Amino acid sequence: MCGTMKAIVKKESAYGAVLIDMPIPEINDHEVLIQVKATSICGTDVHIYNWDDWAKGRVKAPYIFGHEFTGEVVKVGKQVSRAKIGDFVSAETHVVCNQCYMCLTGQQHLCSETKILGVDIDGCFAEYVKVPEQNVWHNPAQMPVELASIQEPLGNAVHTVLHTSVSGKSVAIFGCGPIGLMAIAVAKASGAVQVFAVDKNEYRLELARKMGADHIVDIGKDDPVAMIKQLTRMEGADVMCEMSGHPVAINQALEACANGGKVNILSLPERPVTIDITNQIVFRGLTVQGITGRKMFETWRQVSELLRTNTIDVQPVVTHTLPFEDFEKGFELMRNGTCGKVVLMMPSYQRGKK
Amino acid sequence: MCGTMKAIVKKESAYGAVLIDMPIPEINDHEVLIQVKATSICGTDVHIYNWDDWAKGRVKAPYIFGHEFTGEVVKVGKQVSRAKIGDFVSAETHVVCNQCYMCLTGQQHLCSETKILGVDIDGCFAEYVKVPEQNVWHNPAQMPVELASIQEPLGNAVHTVLHTSVSGKSVAIFGCGPIGLMAIAVAKASGAVQVFAVDKNEYRLELARKMGADHIVDIGKDDPVAMIKQLTRMEGADVMCEMSGHPVAINQALEACANGGKVNILSLPERPVTIDITNQIVFRGLTVQGITGRKMFETWRQVSELLRTNTIDVQPVVTHTLPFEDFEKGFELMRNGTCGKVVLMMPSYQRGKK
Amino acid sequence: MCGTMKAIVKKESAYGAVLIDMPIPEINDHEVLIQVKATSICGTDVHIYNWDDWAKGRVKAPYIFGHEFTGEVVKVGKQVSRAKIGDFVSAETHVVCNQCYMCLTGQQHLCSETKILGVDIDGCFAEYVKVPEQNVWHNPAQMPVELASIQEPLGNAVHTVLHTSVSGKSVAIFGCGPIGLMAIAVAKASGAVQVFAVDKNEYRLELARKMGADHIVDIGKDDPVAMIKQLTRMEGADVMCEMSGHPVAINQALEACANGGKVNILSLPERPVTIDITNQIVFRGLTVQGITGRKMFETWRQVSELLRTNTIDVQPVVTHTLPFEDFEKGFELMRNGTCGKVVLMMPSYQRGKK
Amino acid sequence: MCGTMKAIVKKESAYGAVLIDMPIPEINDHEVLIQVKATSICGTDVHIYNWDDWAKGRVKAPYIFGHEFTGEVVKVGKQVSRAKIGDFVSAETHVVCNQCYMCLTGQQHLCSETKILGVDIDGCFAEYVKVPEQNVWHNPAQMPVELASIQEPLGNAVHTVLHTSVSGKSVAIFGCGPIGLMAIAVAKASGAVQVFAVDKNEYRLELARKMGADHIVDIGKDDPVAMIKQLTRMEGADVMCEMSGHPVAINQALEACANGGKVNILSLPERPVTIDITNQIVFRGLTVQGITGRKMFETWRQVSELLRTNTIDVQPVVTHTLPFEDFEKGFELMRNGTCGKVVLMMPSYQRGKK
Repeated sequence: MCGTMKAIVKKESAYGAVLIDMPIPEINDHEVLIQVKATSICGTDVHIYNWDDWAKGRVKAPYIFGHEFTGEVVKVGKQVSRAKIGDFVSAETHVVCNQCYMCLTGQQHLCSETKILGVDIDGCFAEYVKVPEQNVWHNPAQMPVELASIQEPLGNAVHTVLHTSVSGKSVAIFGCGPIGLMAIAVAKASGAVQVFAVDKNEYRLELARKMGADHIVDIGKDDPVAMIKQLTRMEGADVMCEMSGHPVAINQALEACANGGKVNILSLPERPVTIDITNQIVFRGLTVQGITGRKMFETWRQVSELLRTNTIDVQPVVTHTLPFEDFEKGFELMRNGTCGKVVLMMPSYQRGKK
Repeated sequence: MCGTMKAIVKKESAYGAVLIDMPIPEINDHEVLIQVKATSICGTDVHIYNWDDWAKGRVKAPYIFGHEFTGEVVKVGKQVSRAKIGDFVSAETHVVCNQCYMCLTGQQHLCSETKILGVDIDGCFAEYVKVPEQNVWHNPAQMPVELASIQEPLGNAVHTVLHTSVSGKSVAIFGCGPIGLMAIAVAKASGAVQVFAVDKNEYRLELARKMGADHIVDIGKDDPVAMIKQLTRMEGADVMCEMSGHPVAINQALEACANGGKVNILSLPERPVTIDITNQIVFRGLTVQGITGRKMFETWRQVSELLRTNTIDVQPVVTHTLPFEDFEKGFELMRNGTCGKVVLMMPSYQRGKK
Repeated sequence: MCGTMKAIVKKESAYGAVLIDMPIPEINDHEVLIQVKATSICGTDVHIYNWDDWAKGRVKAPYIFGHEFTGEVVKVGKQVSRAKIGDFVSAETHVVCNQCYMCLTGQQHLCSETKILGVDIDGCFAEYVKVPEQNVWHNPAQMPVELASIQEPLGNAVHTVLHTSVSGKSVAIFGCGPIGLMAIAVAKASGAVQVFAVDKNEYRLELARKMGADHIVDIGKDDPVAMIKQLTRMEGADVMCEMSGHPVAINQALEACANGGKVNILSLPERPVTIDITNQIVFRGLTVQGITGRKMFETWRQVSELLRTNTIDVQPVVTHTLPFEDFEKGFELMRNGTCGKVVLMMPSYQRGKK
Repeated sequence: MCGTMKAIVKKESAYGAVLIDMPIPEINDHEVLIQVKATSICGTDVHIYNWDDWAKGRVKAPYIFGHEFTGEVVKVGKQVSRAKIGDFVSAETHVVCNQCYMCLTGQQHLCSETKILGVDIDGCFAEYVKVPEQNVWHNPAQMPVELASIQEPLGNAVHTVLHTSVSGKSVAIFGCGPIGLMAIAVAKASGAVQVFAVDKNEYRLELARKMGADHIVDIGKDDPVAMIKQLTRMEGADVMCEMSGHPVAINQALEACANGGKVNILSLPERPVTIDITNQIVFRGLTVQGITGRKMFETWRQVSELLRTNTIDVQPVVTHTLPFEDFEKGFELMRNGTCGKVVLMMPSYQRGKK
């Protein structure tokens, strides 16, 4: 297992990325080495590729990026007991400290010392990736690799939607990127009686319809607040899932939320947002909930069970599967917004399938 | 509106019931008079018909029984503001005191002074029934009357299943009478990944399959605990809905429940039940939840929305619709267990349909 | 009971108020007439007195203002059953519609059709006040009238603090007006391990100390974020109660909150507030909860029990009791901030005490 | 650190225990060795000492028993990062598998593979004890060793009482052994408005009074159900903490619980218990919650903070501190019930104090 591997590397503090040879990672006693079968591109990866302000402030080149993947364990550290060679796994991407208040009280996803795979440490856009044993999640044998790879962002969707019970309730999803699209499926499968999908990208609104959204709100044409209110007897929707990051959308989500409702925010607005706390939050008794990561590992368990039993079908979100080498095409699709999820299939998996 | 009406009456403290003329009820300032369109038979009605020990202790003949129904408001008291003549309504059957600790703190379904329609006061097996305005629930215009009538027991199912969020979880339903059957639909529609239906009645297990149960457990052949554990990696199911009332089933529900799981009991075992608190409840951190009635009116709202949007389909539970006059046939079906829900259609509705 | 009574009236759309004779209110069938024994001045009353922008937009002169009070029932409508002449009562000040989604699902405090006593309809700065029977809350016979009168704002404090369990947790109160001061007592009595009181008014910070605050944060001298973090191992406090309405304080409350913590906002900032949703709410998994009014009547029950059993002592908050006629002095104290709660004692009570 | 140490050993499968020399434990890479400063006697230890049926079935002699303690880390395994030599610590006594459904979803206290210190593996009635690093809990420097030692059972009390918010509520504690006594303090400090202490042992009821119980219910003289109801306007108490294990008490706890209330059971009745599910649990909407161990480590955090800030005072529960060598006297006190908590002080600590 010594030697080199192909990897997509952010080589310099600049736009772009290169596919080059890198050393296969060395593991310590608590880590496992995983041969990647499939890896998927996240919006965060696009930020890193594009080298925007956030990336400049957070990421240190050169390094391997990418954090969504699935693969097979090929090597385990001496202290590893929960994983063994040959296991079909995915991984939680937050590497936590295990020592702080959050880690000690069941809220590891809120650990302030978190290091994120492919952001703060080498990631999975490579033939091999190492992760702490603690981060390993075992997949059922029959799970398709493209689904196994997207469990991490699906976990974001599940964590956001299921923070509140949605059965019998109306739900609005603001922002129909891949996570928003998966959130639609999660909400419908969990008993939401009306799901509103709000976006401006026609390609993605069409996907939203495929995912089961009851009402498509095209902000190029429709007023989301008016439309949601009108279709909910002027009460507003019970649960809002904010996945767009736009200040206007956030204010609309508050305004279109029913009194006593929940506004679950997963998005990361670039700048502070101005909101009418008095009239939108206090008088109406709203709950605004910040959502980050996935509960370790309650959320993974939910995701795994929902997929294993076909309770949700997120296959339509995977609009493109490309060979690993064609990553540039994947990034282009993501930049254009003419895709759902883009999954890169690794050479090892491509061989395995023949 | 003065005059007489046809009604199914428990005339004497004895087995059976008769269809006779009774005076149309007089209403007070806070009550509404409803012309019944459809009414359905509950297990409780069978107890009253059969005049078993429970009925002997609780019910005072002569009176009109029946509590599940839908109809049209035909008269309103002077103080009534929320209902008007012509409204298409159903009704909560618990008439509460509005003065006790429970009523004053949002738990009216637990009011100790509750009087139950058709049990403690005259019910709806009649052409007309009166209820307090407070108990009225408005139905969407397009709702079929047989579904509008069964919202009350569907409310029991919803209250039981949705006491816990079930999305991503496994659920076992013990007892597949009409409420158990509807609970299957509620659980599946709310994201339950595996639903076990447990009974011994083949007719009802077949209905359970139609309602979407993933695993049929026939206690005549199968060991529920072994089967549930085996299909849940020996962990047990996360949520148990006890609707059978059998001591053996209750113990099996506890035993087959996953550690940290929920056992929601709606059933009314006839006698005290012996349970292994130490090993089944304490060491395994179970929550045993008593469920009665419907939350007023959170549960009604959930029921109404789930039906209105076709998020659940409980039509297969309604196996028989009979003319009101054929109530004896309905009771016979119920006694034999060769039915799901039996709905009696009223003359007024039958005329209306022509 | 016909005739006139003394009342503090906002006579014109302008600054000030006058004590004049007004007709004793006529009650309808669902209302009760209460002879006021004591009434207390709320910050809202000061806004109305001062005739600020909010008051201009909301209030219609001439009318009687005031909403916090206690008294004795002297007349009941024909349909009233829960109250009788001679009862010692206070009253919920939100008069709700009983018909909307919120009212029908146990969230009456969020009814959009709410009319507030003394704001939208005639209030209690008078010898007599009428309220719907539904709003009446019965007091224990031995409760001092000045405490009975301040149960309404105490309810705000209880609703805010106890929205989350605080036992074993650290709590910060931003804003030490009367409600903030009472919140300190509620938090300490409910097991808060550290209570921070944040304000700039020395008089009120001194009262905060008397109420049991562990740490006094004088924003004239101290940096609240730094001080709270330092005294909580740099973790932040678990529960923030925002009662100041200042944009800076709101941002400090977010920043000084521990990851996964709760920010309960009761205050009504005058303008929209700019907040860093990404870094303060999302990444740190905070819950921002809007709080309005009191749960009907869960909160009243909690308030009543906490007072009845002396589990909390809010007597120190009542810094001034004045004869009703001296209301001008009360308003002046409130404007200067050199008081806690000001209670006006009515002539009838003053006589009764002699 | 090689060599021998004094230890209280269950040497044979028979009544009693002996103080003899045993080898100091060897630690593995993940374990720490702790020099015990103080250790306390639990009811479980008395069962083991007495060699009752439960002990015969569970425990394998010879071994060192005891599980409540505090001490100083004197040696750490190579992989240990969270503890270092000199740390003042206590320890969670459940050694869990880290691999099962419960362990992976934040419910380690319900791990089915749990091994309990001093029950299934060597314990802390010795000069040295080893535990996995994961089980270590750090104490504040100034915490008295007798309090540091009893945090484990205090954790049971906290876990039981605070499973529900108790502020503004009435609470009844059935069984006033040391955990029940500490539960009184936790309930009072957390805002319980009335605490009932139920037992028959006069010594312990006297301690209950010292701990702050509002009502002493001596089952030798008083009827608990009648007395609790009478003092709660016939409603019953809101939260019951069952710590007696007696079938009669369990049924009384159910009966004396208010509708919609919580019955938290920590006790371990020796045999199955017969309960009236229909009338006590279902119709009244009770929640029966099994409680075991302590949440890892939410409960430890709560315990530590409540003690550190003197929010609770459990010092009166520690009725006896004895030299380690006088353990026989401690067991005698426990058998007689003429004690609260008995703490054994170790030679190392006794020297340290001089």
